[in-house]
Amino acid sequence: MSISDTSNHRPANAIRALAMDAVQQANSGHPGAPMGMADMAHALWHDHLRHNPADPAWPGRDRFVLSNGHGSMLIYALLHLTGYDLSIDDLRQFRQLHSRTPGHPEVGITPGVETTTGPLGQGLGNAVGMALAEALLAAEFNRDGHAVVDHHTYVFLGDGCLMEGISHEVASLAGTLGLHKLVALYDDNGISIDGKVEHWFADDTARRFESYGWHVIRVADGHDAAAVSAAIAEARARTAGGPTLIACRTNIGQGSPNMAGTAKVHGAPLGAEEIAATRAALGWNHGPFEIPEDVAAFWNARAAGAQAQADWQQRFNAYAAAYPELAAEYLRRMRGDLPGEFQAAWQAFVDATVAKGETLATRKASQHAIAALAELLPELLGGSADLTGSNYTDWKGVVPVRAAQQPGQPISFGRHINYGVREFGMAAIMNGIALHGGYLPFGGTFLTFSDYSRNALRMAALMKQRVVHVFTHDSIGLGEDGPTHQSIEHAASLRLIPNLDVWRPCDTVETAAAWGAAVNRPASLGMTVHAGGPSALLLSRQNLPFVPRDAATTAAIARGGYVLSEASKGEVRAVILATGSEVALALEAQQRLQAEGVPVRVVSMPSTDVFDRQDKAWQVSVLPAGVPRVAVEAGVTAFWHKYVGLEGAVVGIDSYGESAPADVLFKHFSLTTDAVVEAVRKVL
Amino acid sequence: MSISDTSNHRPANAIRALAMDAVQQANSGHPGAPMGMADMAHALWHDHLRHNPADPAWPGRDRFVLSNGHGSMLIYALLHLTGYDLSIDDLRQFRQLHSRTPGHPEVGITPGVETTTGPLGQGLGNAVGMALAEALLAAEFNRDGHAVVDHHTYVFLGDGCLMEGISHEVASLAGTLGLHKLVALYDDNGISIDGKVEHWFADDTARRFESYGWHVIRVADGHDAAAVSAAIAEARARTAGGPTLIACRTNIGQGSPNMAGTAKVHGAPLGAEEIAATRAALGWNHGPFEIPEDVAAFWNARAAGAQAQADWQQRFNAYAAAYPELAAEYLRRMRGDLPGEFQAAWQAFVDATVAKGETLATRKASQHAIAALAELLPELLGGSADLTGSNYTDWKGVVPVRAAQQPGQPISFGRHINYGVREFGMAAIMNGIALHGGYLPFGGTFLTFSDYSRNALRMAALMKQRVVHVFTHDSIGLGEDGPTHQSIEHAASLRLIPNLDVWRPCDTVETAAAWGAAVNRPASLGMTVHAGGPSALLLSRQNLPFVPRDAATTAAIARGGYVLSEASKGEVRAVILATGSEVALALEAQQRLQAEGVPVRVVSMPSTDVFDRQDKAWQVSVLPAGVPRVAVEAGVTAFWHKYVGLEGAVVGIDSYGESAPADVLFKHFSLTTDAVVEAVRKVL
Repeated sequence: MSISDTSNHRPANAIRALAMDAVQQANSGHPGAPMGMADMAHALWHDHLRHNPADPAWPGRDRFVLSNGHGSMLIYALLHLTGYDLSIDDLRQFRQLHSRTPGHPEVGITPGVETTTGPLGQGLGNAVGMALAEALLAAEFNRDGHAVVDHHTYVFLGDGCLMEGISHEVASLAGTLGLHKLVALYDDNGISIDGKVEHWFADDTARRFESYGWHVIRVADGHDAAAVSAAIAEARARTAGGPTLIACRTNIGQGSPNMAGTAKVHGAPLGAEEIAATRAALGWNHGPFEIPEDVAAFWNARAAGAQAQADWQQRFNAYAAAYPELAAEYLRRMRGDLPGEFQAAWQAFVDATVAKGETLATRKASQHAIAALAELLPELLGGSADLTGSNYTDWKGVVPVRAAQQPGQPISFGRHINYGVREFGMAAIMNGIALHGGYLPFGGTFLTFSDYSRNALRMAALMKQRVVHVFTHDSIGLGEDGPTHQSIEHAASLRLIPNLDVWRPCDTVETAAAWGAAVNRPASLGMTVHAGGPSALLLSRQNLPFVPRDAATTAAIARGGYVLSEASKGEVRAVILATGSEVALALEAQQRLQAEGVPVRVVSMPSTDVFDRQDKAWQVSVLPAGVPRVAVEAGVTAFWHKYVGLEGAVVGIDSYGESAPADVLFKHFSLTTDAVVEAVRKVL
Repeated sequence: MSISDTSNHRPANAIRALAMDAVQQANSGHPGAPMGMADMAHALWHDHLRHNPADPAWPGRDRFVLSNGHGSMLIYALLHLTGYDLSIDDLRQFRQLHSRTPGHPEVGITPGVETTTGPLGQGLGNAVGMALAEALLAAEFNRDGHAVVDHHTYVFLGDGCLMEGISHEVASLAGTLGLHKLVALYDDNGISIDGKVEHWFADDTARRFESYGWHVIRVADGHDAAAVSAAIAEARARTAGGPTLIACRTNIGQGSPNMAGTAKVHGAPLGAEEIAATRAALGWNHGPFEIPEDVAAFWNARAAGAQAQADWQQRFNAYAAAYPELAAEYLRRMRGDLPGEFQAAWQAFVDATVAKGETLATRKASQHAIAALAELLPELLGGSADLTGSNYTDWKGVVPVRAAQQPGQPISFGRHINYGVREFGMAAIMNGIALHGGYLPFGGTFLTFSDYSRNALRMAALMKQRVVHVFTHDSIGLGEDGPTHQSIEHAASLRLIPNLDVWRPCDTVETAAAWGAAVNRPASLGMTVHAGGPSALLLSRQNLPFVPRDAATTAAIARGGYVLSEASKGEVRAVILATGSEVALALEAQQRLQAEGVPVRVVSMPSTDVFDRQDKAWQVSVLPAGVPRVAVEAGVTAFWHKYVGLEGAVVGIDSYGESAPADVLFKHFSLTTDAVVEAVRKVL
């Protein structure tokens, strides 16, 4: 039987062998999933996937996401076999420190890995984001006869992803928006870590996805690569409607004579004996990490990939000739660079904000910033988890993203996404949009509901993705909705997530500065940039007074923490640190104390993360050693001892909120000028 | 038309009037949902709900959950109208400080409110937990001819709940387990805050729930109380299969002539003018907060409720006569009291653990504790989000909960729940189980995935519910799975959630003490107890050495932080604080330093929450003022400045982990004895 015969399992068996050998060598990992999905991978990666191993950053490539990321050896095997810069020695280093083959796939570490997966369900969310970015870019950039943006997004997922709630959120939205170029392949093996899923997961998944408007294809034998391939061809032929789910009935650990079909192959090496038995059963007479020539040749995609990219480049060149500005803009957007004229224009907006001196809720100040950014940055793509009118994430004239108005038409282009009540899904989709490139996504919800999306914020930070979270109603200042909606621990707890820049601005100018910092974090596209990351803006529901500043002080906001109001005569007896809505209390307390002859400095600390990155000289200039400090924030106090120490004081709230008007609550919780003055007196 | 005529809308209009009047008076709130659901409420609360307004704690009552909690005026109106201890003056105080009618329903504040809702989707999860508790208690306690546990759980929910991912998780599990006494009524009004949901939520929800094995009934006119009532009757008649979803097509803000059916009525007062127009349109000729006598009489459920409870009590008395021990046990369990003999028996287990002196992973030590507790506490009900064999939440001989083996049979009783890969759903279901009473639920997942369930932990803490979260694989000690699975910020960030007791034990004895503390937090049943709360146990994957202690030191673990190893000669030059796996490093560093002539105290701090509740004298005795301190924990450092101040040092990790074997990682991240010794030298 020829290797190219579709019923030949040798190509898939190469994946199986690499998976079991690498897991065995690491003495750790998950062989069952790659062995079970190997034939699905054969169908997709050999017959359909448009990619060029020599250029993992080619914008026109299809995107592939392994949402069940524990099956990482599947993608490592595929990347090696198809010709990416991932050697057999890299595979031997599976799960070792600083190898290019970590336990779960990580974007930026391994060429060809599009997103970091492992926390289940989120990969599907990322894929929805990628498919949405593709659809929007196509609607925005393609012109008649010039379909330069035209690729598919494929995602593999398992039972675990489908049990997770986020799978519902993102599949429902993908169906509603009609993302027909998204193709999900479901590794339906009936097994999860605890055993046979029928006891805890009896969904009719096909029916479920049909309820979302997806096209569902059932493949009775997921080890029949030809059948899977035909299903993918059917999915690719679609030009309208929802995405496609291809449910492939498979056998976990396929090939292992004694363990396949059981939870035993899920998360542990097979052992030398069973590996030998599996080799025998598969007729795979090759040593560990040994790929025979016919199989290597079958998989090698370098020539086909180069050709595919060259074809695309030719099309792109024609487009560039016809629409040179559009083409340049498309390339800029895909690089994630800001426009050359951006910084000056943005500075003008900040200056105008200073000049206006408005007293506004910072959520409203944020909307003004967004409106200005939206004009300067066509890549800005907003949204809200069904709180648009509360988060103020929209702007004048913005059009919402909608499904295609007629079958066969492109998605109805817009720059604001109604994500629905789907905080976690929104955040994972935003990550996918950023990973795809072409847009700078932001999305809003109430700060308390950052709890729902928390792990996707973490993933954005881990992946160094430039996304912006607009979290409004950031304290008891939210008022009557009560403790379920009032953030207490959230500001502090978000600050603990490494590489997430948290901002809690005190007025219109700090809000503008926070937005500027957020969009100026570098975009991190695949293998290219590793310095960026997400930002979270914590914004008030209630009005906050404008604070006048000179130019140097305004510029100092970018340092994260700065002297907002120096002590009288520069004689600093104490420092009051505050953020957001509590800066006003700090300034009032300063006035009172100075009237009593106690010179006090007020430090505004909108971003402790950014302040912590400043050099020591700056930090000491703001917070001089030996001067007592008091921190004020409408939230838990524990965090602030990092800045005030054991001797300092923190005015905050260490219990849950209450349902009442905001002004009543600030008094009830003793977040008052009196309390700040009293705290300063105590530390003096 | 008589008030009892099912087509008479006056009973429902009373709810509408109270809702719009209370929101208007508060100048804040959500009138649209209560006005839209008023007829559904008429059908359920008048025709079906078995409850006694005079005794909200009657164990045999049906449970009612308003999952779309922003519609709080619906339940307040119903509680008032049916005769609960909630006066019209209470309703006038809607959303005011310390009123019994806060912005969202809060258990423990308002008699008859079964759970705190508002964060969308979680109420449905709570309801699934209540229905599961009912089914398990029925299987455990009922005897032939004695169905003492036999009530329904009803839940109202809206589009928001159904968009949230958690609705998928819990509905899927409820379907799989066949919780046919759960009845959900869907307020299908087609509107969410952003407007018409069709643009972001086009699910065929009926089909979706059918895919979960639910029975679905469509009511074309949700304002036809008779039709809704008939659907509820159909649902109640079911004795097998999945739960029932009654999808009621409604009009948000029904009755408001100019705003009904739009997002305008969702979250703001109607205004005086529209309220007047609505009164006219409804023919409701009564003043604000005025209920005419015929309507009051129609709704008053005190007589019927007393009769229902008396009937149940008679049945229960017969049961108690036949099975006195079972009856006493049932009542104890529903009170949430621990057995009288528990404390002594548990102390014996702790003593035996001390005597054994085993070196184990604390997740394994936790399993030993669980096994001991399971024998002493038949109410202990374990589970895991598909990581049973990793979290070690099961014990020898435990039987898993399964769907009924035959239609019509009770649920297949067990004491371990395979929650599936549904961390958030698990946590919300655990809250529902605790709220129902009869069980003490615990559940496991990896610590990092506490991110997924985070808001349900917060809700448990806010509601003071005794649930226990077993979070294993609590650091880079997890090893090869890499940064997506390695907790960095999680221990610190969970400690910020008010009233959640976080424990990170260092060995078998501390693990036992942590479990003891967790189960000894008071159960908080409805209106009765307000002192309890949830606990989170953060446990290692890897072995941790046993630390010998005398009896007093062992007893001191319950203080949360204590002197584990005093400095030589009692001369304390520095204090090293550590938790969990880093306590061993602290003890090694102590030895090294003392060998060099630097006497150092080691403080083990398994629970900062509990330590913070100790009196000042204890705290100072453990952490004497003026002595330099070093904290060691394999996680973010910011939190520990609360204990070491500005001058102290923290040995920790402020970046993401890596994929490698655990021992390699501890070295790579400088979590070593050397690093601790060095840090102590620096602070001296």
